[in-house]
Amino acid sequence: METVAIVGVGLIGGSFALALREAGFGGRIIGVSSERTIAEALRYRVIDEGLSLDRACAQADLVYLAGPIHSILETIPQLDAFVKEGALVTDAGSTKQRIADCGAQLRRAQFLGGHPMAGKESRGVQAAEGQLFAGRPYLLTPKAEADLETPASRAFVNWVRKIGAVPRVLSPAQHDRIVAHSSHLPQLLSTTLSGSLGRNPDSEQIAAAAGPGLVDSTRLALSGWDIWRDILETNRPSILEALDLFIAEAQALRARYATAELEADFAQGKEFALRLRKSR
Amino acid sequence: METVAIVGVGLIGGSFALALREAGFGGRIIGVSSERTIAEALRYRVIDEGLSLDRACAQADLVYLAGPIHSILETIPQLDAFVKEGALVTDAGSTKQRIADCGAQLRRAQFLGGHPMAGKESRGVQAAEGQLFAGRPYLLTPKAEADLETPASRAFVNWVRKIGAVPRVLSPAQHDRIVAHSSHLPQLLSTTLSGSLGRNPDSEQIAAAAGPGLVDSTRLALSGWDIWRDILETNRPSILEALDLFIAEAQALRARYATAELEADFAQGKEFALRLRKSR
Repeated sequence: METVAIVGVGLIGGSFALALREAGFGGRIIGVSSERTIAEALRYRVIDEGLSLDRACAQADLVYLAGPIHSILETIPQLDAFVKEGALVTDAGSTKQRIADCGAQLRRAQFLGGHPMAGKESRGVQAAEGQLFAGRPYLLTPKAEADLETPASRAFVNWVRKIGAVPRVLSPAQHDRIVAHSSHLPQLLSTTLSGSLGRNPDSEQIAAAAGPGLVDSTRLALSGWDIWRDILETNRPSILEALDLFIAEAQALRARYATAELEADFAQGKEFALRLRKSR
Repeated sequence: METVAIVGVGLIGGSFALALREAGFGGRIIGVSSERTIAEALRYRVIDEGLSLDRACAQADLVYLAGPIHSILETIPQLDAFVKEGALVTDAGSTKQRIADCGAQLRRAQFLGGHPMAGKESRGVQAAEGQLFAGRPYLLTPKAEADLETPASRAFVNWVRKIGAVPRVLSPAQHDRIVAHSSHLPQLLSTTLSGSLGRNPDSEQIAAAAGPGLVDSTRLALSGWDIWRDILETNRPSILEALDLFIAEAQALRARYATAELEADFAQGKEFALRLRKSR
């Protein structure tokens, strides 16, 4: 793996480029983005040069698609026209089934979907950091396990490990079901909580009295619609299922609270929260 | 204010003692706690000495009740027997109506309820820190506004400002209604989410795939039942109301998601999350 093309040099794409460098990658890193983003990425020394999609892909051993889901879905079908024979195309989109189906159409290059479980409140290449993936799960979603055994996949997964991330393999369908619970549901709960408190007649006093718990609980509500529109559109059935399950659980807890203690609920909530922290 | 008695030298009581010192308080700080806690508090130089409740209160100009709600409710009725005439008794309990009613029975001392909106995952005096309250709201809940105008109240509120906290005044009833939304509801949502994910058949994969959003969303679920039992017991009607409102909001969002975009929900959630951060 000598040349990498990062398509979409934002927080994730820029961080992947910086992470590669910090992990000792000595090859060339080409950025494909808007003129303004390329100028910034060059200024921060995140990429070596900026090129158009066709010229970047003609050279790249790894094409890393780090834009929003809809742009990944638009880009993949164009790639066969200029990608190097045997190159690996991967992406960092937040839902995987639709993208995997699209990637399976590639003929000249291999596709392997991925989803780094990393992020932060700030966005754009100026927020990129080489340690963003360190210690975080990096979900890999091959259509078939054999997809992981090609030389191009092995080289890529090796770099995922070298940047400090923890690769985990799931099928695209499993991935979308799992993240509906682990990521998309928490997002909708934070959005609902924050919006609901904002519409509350006491919202000024609620904001003024906020402690660290409410700050944590509303952090995801800061996320932008431009990212979430695509996620909600491409994972609707699993997210609706996760939301229904949560509403039923909240109603059950409400019923228990009215008549009895919630000690077991607190014990179970704490147990999973600890388990989550141990598995990291 | 020359002598302060801290009753319950844990995270909050210990931090208040350290905060007073860092803010230049030159008087005596007496701790009332278990023998083991007093030994630790002395070792960390959080207090000057440990005494029994009666001996500590006989000297104190300020009695700061920082234990759990049930112990605050048990302690207040004993205080008239040994508190100094004209001393101020305050507390740091998380619900205020029941405690305010109890405090109003004091004859020899004045009562003024309080609730510092600060905290962290770790507990106990070894986790205490002098900057815990800095930049955080400190809710004061007088039964009547005039309670704030006594010399003892003025001296105390002055120290609240000096430790960097931001005093805000609410009636005990307002307080309990507000924190049901800002603190108790987020706690129950985090507990429900975490417990529900723990019971999910895919819980191992969910834990393994967790990103920073799920870590934030389950932080409150780490809270102990020993604290929450008292809060849930002493603020049940307001919490049930807040929970019912949230469930209705989640159902409404679910219905919108099935048929249309959630762009307005995301905008409103983000708006309040930003407002919250600006008001701090």
